[in-house]
Amino acid sequence: MSRRFAAVDVIRTKRDGGALSGEQIDWVVAAYTRGEVAEEQMSALAMAILLRGMDRAEVSRWTRAMIESGSRLDFSSLPRPAVDKHSTGGVGDKVTLPLAPLVAACGAAVPQLSGRGLGHTGGTLDKMEAIAGWRASLELAEVDAQLRDVGAVVCAATADLAPADRKLYALRDVTGTVESVPLIASSIMSKKIAEGTRALVLDVKVGSGAFMKDPALARELATTMVALGTDAGVETRALLTDMSTPLGRTAGNALEVRESVEVLAGGGPADLVELTVVLAREMLDAVGLDAVDPADALRDGRAMDVWRRMVAAQGGDPDAPLPVARHTHEVRAEADGVLTGLDALAVGVAAWRLGAGRARREEAVQAGAGVELHAVRGERVRAGQPLLTLHTDTPERFGWALEALAGGVVVAGPTTGRPAAAPALVLERITA
Amino acid sequence: MSRRFAAVDVIRTKRDGGALSGEQIDWVVAAYTRGEVAEEQMSALAMAILLRGMDRAEVSRWTRAMIESGSRLDFSSLPRPAVDKHSTGGVGDKVTLPLAPLVAACGAAVPQLSGRGLGHTGGTLDKMEAIAGWRASLELAEVDAQLRDVGAVVCAATADLAPADRKLYALRDVTGTVESVPLIASSIMSKKIAEGTRALVLDVKVGSGAFMKDPALARELATTMVALGTDAGVETRALLTDMSTPLGRTAGNALEVRESVEVLAGGGPADLVELTVVLAREMLDAVGLDAVDPADALRDGRAMDVWRRMVAAQGGDPDAPLPVARHTHEVRAEADGVLTGLDALAVGVAAWRLGAGRARREEAVQAGAGVELHAVRGERVRAGQPLLTLHTDTPERFGWALEALAGGVVVAGPTTGRPAAAPALVLERITA
Repeated sequence: MSRRFAAVDVIRTKRDGGALSGEQIDWVVAAYTRGEVAEEQMSALAMAILLRGMDRAEVSRWTRAMIESGSRLDFSSLPRPAVDKHSTGGVGDKVTLPLAPLVAACGAAVPQLSGRGLGHTGGTLDKMEAIAGWRASLELAEVDAQLRDVGAVVCAATADLAPADRKLYALRDVTGTVESVPLIASSIMSKKIAEGTRALVLDVKVGSGAFMKDPALARELATTMVALGTDAGVETRALLTDMSTPLGRTAGNALEVRESVEVLAGGGPADLVELTVVLAREMLDAVGLDAVDPADALRDGRAMDVWRRMVAAQGGDPDAPLPVARHTHEVRAEADGVLTGLDALAVGVAAWRLGAGRARREEAVQAGAGVELHAVRGERVRAGQPLLTLHTDTPERFGWALEALAGGVVVAGPTTGRPAAAPALVLERITA
Repeated sequence: MSRRFAAVDVIRTKRDGGALSGEQIDWVVAAYTRGEVAEEQMSALAMAILLRGMDRAEVSRWTRAMIESGSRLDFSSLPRPAVDKHSTGGVGDKVTLPLAPLVAACGAAVPQLSGRGLGHTGGTLDKMEAIAGWRASLELAEVDAQLRDVGAVVCAATADLAPADRKLYALRDVTGTVESVPLIASSIMSKKIAEGTRALVLDVKVGSGAFMKDPALARELATTMVALGTDAGVETRALLTDMSTPLGRTAGNALEVRESVEVLAGGGPADLVELTVVLAREMLDAVGLDAVDPADALRDGRAMDVWRRMVAAQGGDPDAPLPVARHTHEVRAEADGVLTGLDALAVGVAAWRLGAGRARREEAVQAGAGVELHAVRGERVRAGQPLLTLHTDTPERFGWALEALAGGVVVAGPTTGRPAAAPALVLERITA
């Protein structure tokens, strides 16, 4: 860090297809964080990285430099092994809610430092805040105490984790430099590694509702992130999972809490239960707790018990009724047939437009808004049968939400459409 | 221009290898000039253009958009045809000084809106300012009157020509996005087309002392600029000329004025005379004045007469003694042999370090500083014979200048070195 470089030489190195040296990376990330490398220089470098790529050594060093721009947590003194999960985001992906208490019930410590939603994918904090009284902001000491007492925490990032990433992400967002696997991977992993858990399981979504719609790119992202975690000494695995149709039967904050509680009560939709259990097994295996079967902990109420204590510890009332939207609108099947299309992106955008999501960070979300699904893809339906219920406090938005759904919900006639088994949910498992 | 775009979409189009539409280009250049497209967005776009390229239609539209960001001159009402020359810059390239009065003496009007030097190549205004009393800044009406009276003007850009280019060039300079043929070509041609002459001759330098060291890139730049001029209705030709060794025998402001006056007096070094006459023929041919031989106008003093009137019209005294540096240092041949190497870049950097050039726009230059050559490449030399004289007012810089010359001045022993004829000066002629 002592050596100084000229930003323009670092940019030229990457522009001309060269590999950045470790010293160049350390310097440019630190100098950018301090404001010595200008925004217009970093955006040119980001574009050069996007078009020229970075090799494993570069992206690993880049990630380390972003971690070193801020503070780092350390959960190694806890009596239980700490394990983290990260999803790249999907429609109806409320898995963190049942998963964190479930894995805690099986013996691990689960600190879930989460974010808010932006665009068509929901945010875990927005969902949890549908619970009366629950607060997202905890002091670091509170996180530590709750992990010791309860075993699971879902909260907003408590510390100054990877501030370089926050600054760089805001820049990439306005300069067309988001879609770079090395930059996405280092952005996610710098924050996750800085959280200081022993192990990390990544849920990389693929399909229309995911950030990565292309399986090859999703695989590349997962492979890169697993390598970055491994390089940093974190036991890291990734699952590629399907996000071509919503996960579970709800998309929207309070609606998703309700469905999560159903899973914790031993019920809930099959796909959501499956993914929760698969991820729990992966997390437990990653910290050597593979003797416990999380499916048992769902069935016998141990996970539900942790959930209730986890919610209560952060001021939430697990028994309070969840908010309900003031207006609903039902979408019914027009004819007999098979629901061959139920597109994740269409449902996600509809839920967002109904008020469940936000377009800008400073906007508020509606707790009760969202989309409820009454049938899933591949199911046979009858004319007049309800397919979806739209929920919102602002009924003037129904039309806008229905526009988003046009073409995304397809009922094929009885001669062309055939009931189909759900496609595989877990597409691939990627380890170091 | 009425349609609005999002900058990030324009960036993405180019990033993903697409062609920008005419409307996208018009919008992004105008919005950037107004400050609505941020510097960091334009730098990301510039990097994407550098790495993805622009086709002829794009670069032509980009050039037009930059021209439309400012005002445009019009010399069509002059009684003589107006013709312009532009050099991409070299070491010892003082051609504008004898060329402008020479071409005017042959019947054309020659408005040379020139710049100052930066780095190892000199600037025409810096050279002319070595003449006592001469002023670079003229009002547009003065330019017009002088073109009518004298036929030639060398001055600073009088009007707000292509302000988008000035802003963009400053950005490219700090973001590693200078070296893009479409961006270089549109930068030069936006200003040259905005000057409003009927014809334009480009002197594109190739070799160590040139901006374009690679002949293929220089040819691409020349071809692109000829196409841009042609698309804009300006009769445009380009010559690729050698810049592997300095042009003439001097590099430095007053030293170059003295040498230019020698050419105007019918003397001067052969290469400088050759290039001046070749460019004059090209300029005269481009405006249909091909009956006149410029070589005659050098011999019979008509060009010198225009020079004296041109200098005097701008307050300069053509008879005033030129400034002389206070200190000189001679570099002599260490042994008998042949001067096989006399590198343009080495001499240019030495002259710059002696005080003839500047590293930043706000720096002053020394009128008397520079390098004088006593032998040229391919010449047989004797031990102890002076090869170069270094001139400066700041003698502590001699050591730094000599460092620049190390390896750039090579005398090969009598068994290995052979006297050689000068390589061709004009390498290629490029027309529409």
